[in-house]
Amino acid sequence: MKILEEVSEEGVTERRFDLEVDGQRVPGIVWTPTGASGPRPLLLQGHGGIQHKRVENILSLARRMVRRHGWAVAAIDAPGHGDRVSKEEAERARERVMKAVREGGARGARGGARGGRDQRRDMAKAAGMAVAEWKATLDALQGMDEIGSEHPVAYWGVSMGTRYGVPLIASEPRIKCAVLGLFGIGPDPDEFSELAGSIQVPLLFLFQLNDELMTPPAGLKLFETFGSKVKTMHINPGSHVGVPAFERDEYEAFYLRHVGDAPGK
Amino acid sequence: MKILEEVSEEGVTERRFDLEVDGQRVPGIVWTPTGASGPRPLLLQGHGGIQHKRVENILSLARRMVRRHGWAVAAIDAPGHGDRVSKEEAERARERVMKAVREGGARGARGGARGGRDQRRDMAKAAGMAVAEWKATLDALQGMDEIGSEHPVAYWGVSMGTRYGVPLIASEPRIKCAVLGLFGIGPDPDEFSELAGSIQVPLLFLFQLNDELMTPPAGLKLFETFGSKVKTMHINPGSHVGVPAFERDEYEAFYLRHVGDAPGK
Repeated sequence: MKILEEVSEEGVTERRFDLEVDGQRVPGIVWTPTGASGPRPLLLQGHGGIQHKRVENILSLARRMVRRHGWAVAAIDAPGHGDRVSKEEAERARERVMKAVREGGARGARGGARGGRDQRRDMAKAAGMAVAEWKATLDALQGMDEIGSEHPVAYWGVSMGTRYGVPLIASEPRIKCAVLGLFGIGPDPDEFSELAGSIQVPLLFLFQLNDELMTPPAGLKLFETFGSKVKTMHINPGSHVGVPAFERDEYEAFYLRHVGDAPGK
Repeated sequence: MKILEEVSEEGVTERRFDLEVDGQRVPGIVWTPTGASGPRPLLLQGHGGIQHKRVENILSLARRMVRRHGWAVAAIDAPGHGDRVSKEEAERARERVMKAVREGGARGARGGARGGRDQRRDMAKAAGMAVAEWKATLDALQGMDEIGSEHPVAYWGVSMGTRYGVPLIASEPRIKCAVLGLFGIGPDPDEFSELAGSIQVPLLFLFQLNDELMTPPAGLKLFETFGSKVKTMHINPGSHVGVPAFERDEYEAFYLRHVGDAPGK
């Protein structure tokens, strides 16, 4: 892990880093309390499609967990996102998604994850990369004095952050609880639903009643499929990008319930 | 309103009262901060079927809202419940419900509210009485110096507390927000679903994934039907009576978000 830049502001130290994984450059950020030393809980945040590692919702939850609870927080750009693509490529990807939303094909027959067969195959391949990159990032982060491996690791990721989060959590015993959401599955079992069924850790699962990309029954089906005994689904009215701000309090309360404050907080 | 008994314990004054409504004796309890004077927010709590005004979940939320937030809280026995029936009648009612649960008929074709046509007609009649009794109780409570009519009124009631709460909230502009749940409707509109659709106040709606009495799609349908722009559905695994204890923190957070503390708190 190569630290590229370090900035401290209002008690939060933000370090940009690069990590090489399978020949790919993976750009990331780690946030820790300024002057921190010794191990602490770690939150991994997986961004959504056509977003990146430092969008507003990721940054605000990172600062909140660092300032109020002494946690470390990290985010990386997913394959084909953020600093891994040019502005032009990012814009073309954004236009493709907006077109799919306008055409409403996303809430089609399958009812669950969007797109046709080719798109789903590409997504599965990217998910495999994303999982390998998260594991390598977690290894590197746990080597930092301010993080270590003594405390639980938690995950947050909705939409594409859930598409990649489910295989990550299913295969990563270091992750002890997660906030997921804005994703659904169809009625027939597939590889993704089997991974979801194998997850046992406590979950908070967000869903939007008027999501343009998936139906409430598809979301309910995914929620029912998770193997976790402790899981809660929160449904609010509104669009895919319209999760109410008060749910941020719920993420925080969930992590405190299952992990708690860092030592000394 | 006739006060029958007053007990104060750890900052909470509990007064039992009787109110006569349409020739019926309605037994109730009001909880206020010990030594309170002047107006404050009021929470009305509607108990579930085969329960009564002082079951553990009502008492614990009442004490929490009074102690931490300076609210007043009230509960009354619904028609055919609590001090309005003999122990033998209560036991027979309990056995009827347990039999229905065992037979599983409750999650039948309609998928929503339980029971046959006769039972639904009896329920509608009892709901009419319950609404009239709540309105008379609210009038009487707002006449108390410790409550008054300057602050918002909130409602809490799941299961039968939602069956009666929906027509109450739909016809009672003094109620500004509510926690409801453990209830569902079928796909076809009826009088109950029309009342639900007319509700506009913020709602928190609880549902249990493995409820013996109704299906998740029936719960989702009711949640979708509510006319409120601000509403959140929380779904947890478990049975009708198995709502996780941490949801109590959610009730409290919801009331604080929409009403806030009493003056001086």
